[in-house]
Amino acid sequence: MTAKSGIPYKTYLTEDQMPTAWYNVRADMKTKPAPLLNPQTRQPCTAEELSHVFCDELVKQELDNTNRFIEIPQEIRDFYRMYRPSPLVRAYFLEKALGTPAHIYYKFEGNNTSGSHKLNSAIAQAYYAKKQGLKGVTTETGAGQWGTALSMACSFFGLDCQVFMVKCSYEQKPFRREVMRTYGANVTPSPSDTTNVGRQILKEHPGTTGSLGCAISEAVEAAVTQEGYRYVLGSVLSQVLLHQSIIGLETQKALENLGVKPDVIIGCAGGGSNLGGLISPFMGEKLRGEADYRFIAVEPASCPSLTRGRYVYDYCDTGRVCPLAKMYTLGADFIPSANHAGGLRYHGMSSVLSELYDEKLMEARSVIQTEVFEAARYFARVEGILPAPESSHAIRVAIDEANRCTREGKAENIVFGLTGTGYFDMVAYQKFNDNQMSDYVPTDKDLEAGFSKLP
Amino acid sequence: MTAKSGIPYKTYLTEDQMPTAWYNVRADMKTKPAPLLNPQTRQPCTAEELSHVFCDELVKQELDNTNRFIEIPQEIRDFYRMYRPSPLVRAYFLEKALGTPAHIYYKFEGNNTSGSHKLNSAIAQAYYAKKQGLKGVTTETGAGQWGTALSMACSFFGLDCQVFMVKCSYEQKPFRREVMRTYGANVTPSPSDTTNVGRQILKEHPGTTGSLGCAISEAVEAAVTQEGYRYVLGSVLSQVLLHQSIIGLETQKALENLGVKPDVIIGCAGGGSNLGGLISPFMGEKLRGEADYRFIAVEPASCPSLTRGRYVYDYCDTGRVCPLAKMYTLGADFIPSANHAGGLRYHGMSSVLSELYDEKLMEARSVIQTEVFEAARYFARVEGILPAPESSHAIRVAIDEANRCTREGKAENIVFGLTGTGYFDMVAYQKFNDNQMSDYVPTDKDLEAGFSKLP
Repeated sequence: MTAKSGIPYKTYLTEDQMPTAWYNVRADMKTKPAPLLNPQTRQPCTAEELSHVFCDELVKQELDNTNRFIEIPQEIRDFYRMYRPSPLVRAYFLEKALGTPAHIYYKFEGNNTSGSHKLNSAIAQAYYAKKQGLKGVTTETGAGQWGTALSMACSFFGLDCQVFMVKCSYEQKPFRREVMRTYGANVTPSPSDTTNVGRQILKEHPGTTGSLGCAISEAVEAAVTQEGYRYVLGSVLSQVLLHQSIIGLETQKALENLGVKPDVIIGCAGGGSNLGGLISPFMGEKLRGEADYRFIAVEPASCPSLTRGRYVYDYCDTGRVCPLAKMYTLGADFIPSANHAGGLRYHGMSSVLSELYDEKLMEARSVIQTEVFEAARYFARVEGILPAPESSHAIRVAIDEANRCTREGKAENIVFGLTGTGYFDMVAYQKFNDNQMSDYVPTDKDLEAGFSKLP
Repeated sequence: MTAKSGIPYKTYLTEDQMPTAWYNVRADMKTKPAPLLNPQTRQPCTAEELSHVFCDELVKQELDNTNRFIEIPQEIRDFYRMYRPSPLVRAYFLEKALGTPAHIYYKFEGNNTSGSHKLNSAIAQAYYAKKQGLKGVTTETGAGQWGTALSMACSFFGLDCQVFMVKCSYEQKPFRREVMRTYGANVTPSPSDTTNVGRQILKEHPGTTGSLGCAISEAVEAAVTQEGYRYVLGSVLSQVLLHQSIIGLETQKALENLGVKPDVIIGCAGGGSNLGGLISPFMGEKLRGEADYRFIAVEPASCPSLTRGRYVYDYCDTGRVCPLAKMYTLGADFIPSANHAGGLRYHGMSSVLSELYDEKLMEARSVIQTEVFEAARYFARVEGILPAPESSHAIRVAIDEANRCTREGKAENIVFGLTGTGYFDMVAYQKFNDNQMSDYVPTDKDLEAGFSKLP
């Protein structure tokens, strides 16, 4: 099929072409994302305050709104070479199946053991923890991709890794848990009785199967109460978007090599790590007035922080121990329908993406679950990759956009982020295959309950 | 790390460099592999006889001992571009961890949804079935990789796919089953009551959890009793080794590009599909006197067909419906310890590899299970890829060979085949992580029982 257009099915950068610095989109934003606030004083968090929770170098990156490029340390670049560059795939088979004049490309981040893009930030965070001489790190995981990625990263640097895994995932995904154990991580179902906040939550909600917000509270407590530990987080934070910019930088370079200019760039959005990483360098061009692109954030209709949330300061976790962040949010107490299969369950959205969305530099769209799985199965059959439920949100909208191009007779270049594989999500696929998957979209009343407890 | 040696961590061929023909090692063998025999007449099977079971074009390939190269049809080459070329990885991190002067390379076939190299032959077999105008194909699967690969291939060409899955795998690996269902395959636990041979086996062995040999018998019966169906097989056959030569051809070209000449080439061996595919082109050089290499087949000590089997004609399946093949075999009734986790459980070995081994052109080594999983976990932590149990047999011996190089102070080039990922094998990893995995090596008496029923 290459002969037709001269563009190969897969484009890999050479190792020489791989990025040597991450791109910090905040440097090009006129209005910077609102700062994290100390929940007691309501004043912007200082580096000193944040350093009790996060590694020093990561605090610096979190607060850095000015440096456009931040060098990637050599050790991290070496590790990236284990599984990067990731391929930019021209979806010839999908285009043919859809009969669309659009040209579809996807950046595939699933070819590593964590099964997703999460490793890009995990290895950076583990590196800085090691460099600071720490004993270990704590974190939470929901779907399990971040926990797996962090386990791999910690194993590589010989750091202890303590993962609080949302209890329902711990029970429903024993294999994810086992991958983490194989990498030497200590995995605890959350809420647990190993932390004060966990015991408190268990007392108030006996029998709860947990949430990401709970698990964050426990992981933060475990970090600040153990000597030589810090907390690390796989999404939402600006430092994570910085590390994930490797996705966008590679995509940008590969498209440049191919002589292709994207018209629309699509990514799924939970906390924003993948979407932010993918679009950052392109958004930078747009912010600097060098190019124009459409960006589409895709979120589940069951957890619609951008499309139906409020742009206000909110708690990041259920236990309210973390700093306050200004973000599009459904409220820290919002818990999406248990029926929802994806990992895009966080109540808020990255402050960087929230600000860009608020300035109308980016669009957002919500999609319902069964339509996402229809797109997932279709894609699996046509393009050969069984996608993660999260990633399939982006596939859904990429297909919708391609169909729009067909109706309008336009040969647009559509680029989307395929964040990972669905090998550990077969319970959800089984529900879909058995026609037992349903769609629950929260009512306005459901959302009001979450909004009523905003700070 | 690239700077040190100039050799990148991963080498991908460009699409232009990808092989356009498979290599048929039989053309270069002085003594050809012994022909398949009709079990009734004990005469070599004719093309006409075989065509009741197999697709016509595949029968041709099965009987072709003379053509060195067989062109890969364009449709298959297009499909290969979905997930190939696979990377040839320089294992810098493993070398460093082992402190070895050896240079270690592995050809990684796990970056596709089947999780292994099996897709290379599945797509070829599905293509020829489609081209012949068939409605569908039947097959068996044990560990599930072949069944998944065939489901993907059939889905791509719109063929019906009927998979008989060894009952214990069907029950222990519901997620593998679900991947096949997602690709539209019909999966039946074997032995089943849908075939005569299945009903017979169930009557004789009520409560049996099945075996690969049983499942083959059922799949063959299903193929010959349904109009428009043929049977396909993922290993053992010469046609499969032909298709899998894509692995070796890519490896050969990539090493040539790097200016590296391997000293030893290692692969795990169940029926021989991966090992045969990997070594074929190099074996060709050796057979033609152009180069010399050491080849090592690695098999589990629990199912040691090469190292402890006999080189005789034997049945390929439990129901004795298939042709007889001359191979190193433990006897068609041999069933390896249930404790053994890998997919390398077949009682016999490819006739091509058996002949090469008998001529001492290849070595063989058997390894015990816990040592395989120790190597697997070590590799996962050091190189970042969680390997399939099967592939880990090759890792074990690659590490052993590297350690030998350390002792001998030799900087040999070691190449091994990493056939796939272990994401669907976490039950086995869990046993290992919990120290509940044991090693059973059959006694001579155990083996005698199998040999006593040889034809």
